Amino acid sequence: MTATRDVPPEEQARHAARMARKKAARDRMMETKTAEKGLVIVHTGPGKGKSSSGFGMIMRCIAHQMPCAVVQFIKGAWDTGERRLLTTHFADLCQFHAMGEGFTWETQDRSRDIAAAEAGWQTAQALIRDPSIRMVLLDEINIALRYGYLDVQAVLDFLATEKPPMTHVVLTGRGAPEALVAAADLVTEMAMVKHPFRAGVKAQAGVEF
Amino acid sequence: MTATRDVPPEEQARHAARMARKKAARDRMMETKTAEKGLVIVHTGPGKGKSSSGFGMIMRCIAHQMPCAVVQFIKGAWDTGERRLLTTHFADLCQFHAMGEGFTWETQDRSRDIAAAEAGWQTAQALIRDPSIRMVLLDEINIALRYGYLDVQAVLDFLATEKPPMTHVVLTGRGAPEALVAAADLVTEMAMVKHPFRAGVKAQAGVEF
Repeated sequence: MTATRDVPPEEQARHAARMARKKAARDRMMETKTAEKGLVIVHTGPGKGKSSSGFGMIMRCIAHQMPCAVVQFIKGAWDTGERRLLTTHFADLCQFHAMGEGFTWETQDRSRDIAAAEAGWQTAQALIRDPSIRMVLLDEINIALRYGYLDVQAVLDFLATEKPPMTHVVLTGRGAPEALVAAADLVTEMAMVKHPFRAGVKAQAGVEF
Repeated sequence: MTATRDVPPEEQARHAARMARKKAARDRMMETKTAEKGLVIVHTGPGKGKSSSGFGMIMRCIAHQMPCAVVQFIKGAWDTGERRLLTTHFADLCQFHAMGEGFTWETQDRSRDIAAAEAGWQTAQALIRDPSIRMVLLDEINIALRYGYLDVQAVLDFLATEKPPMTHVVLTGRGAPEALVAAADLVTEMAMVKHPFRAGVKAQAGVEF
């Protein structure tokens, strides 16, 4: 690669004109985006990045001094990086509740999984009801919804009627129920294009936990 | 929702047996996942979460006391939450370089955009070459590759020959070149299922920046 490529003046002029038109169109579009509201955000799909982008948003909230909270529905006692960082550095701004009992194939106990999910949802409801908390991350709750540990309609009814208007709620996990996708404001599907587990690489610190 | 639903004993037993089989299959699979290596990770696609999950991984590295670094290729002087958090709390573990000049339609100057991208890539190469740095996030570099500000093959050759074996490099931005997807270890496509901009909602603190 050369240190700096020279752009011929005529190409530069064409580029500038094209970008000026793009900026004008974009400015017109952005003028219509004026509303602020608390969003119901869903990260689903089989790909990576559902929880980590949820934690990325929690970190943004912390940076903006916005009180926030995390409830983990599947992960339990594991010492994940996100847990360690939030509880040791930012406990004043971000509550952290690991309410899970582990993967369903680890517990092998449906009653216990249901009880854990319901306890997590009780905690989540209290956090969401508190209007001083600006974002609540419900990590892996979609798994609990998919397995029927929690009732989807009860969760949607709660979000529709009791979530304060400016509170963001982020729900992660693969297999988000259709009714949740329909009710949400912002939905991203993480698609797995390529995953290193297939090449024999294990879960690694920093990347997966 | 009832406080705790009772699971009939026969259903509980069937569930436990099914989960025990699942665990056995999973344990066999995980036994084959023994390798550790530095990954080339790509987050692309039009959906949300490409940068925020990159920052989530950077936060995990920080939690594990793994030195890491961020180079931003498009975002410049903006005071984003991620920038503020990393530079004020974790400057000892994470270098932060905002090398961008803004969106192409803001600068309207192709020469300047190219020069900024090349300067960012110079910085990125020095960071990646340093084996003490365990993860380097190249935020929005895919935009620079897509517009031809950087040469894709030169970037791939560098990663193939000069990246230390245990270093993770994360490349984000929509429109990742096919050659990059082919060369990467882990690729996630963030698909936009639903976005609140369409409903007139603007970019909000904590969610987008």
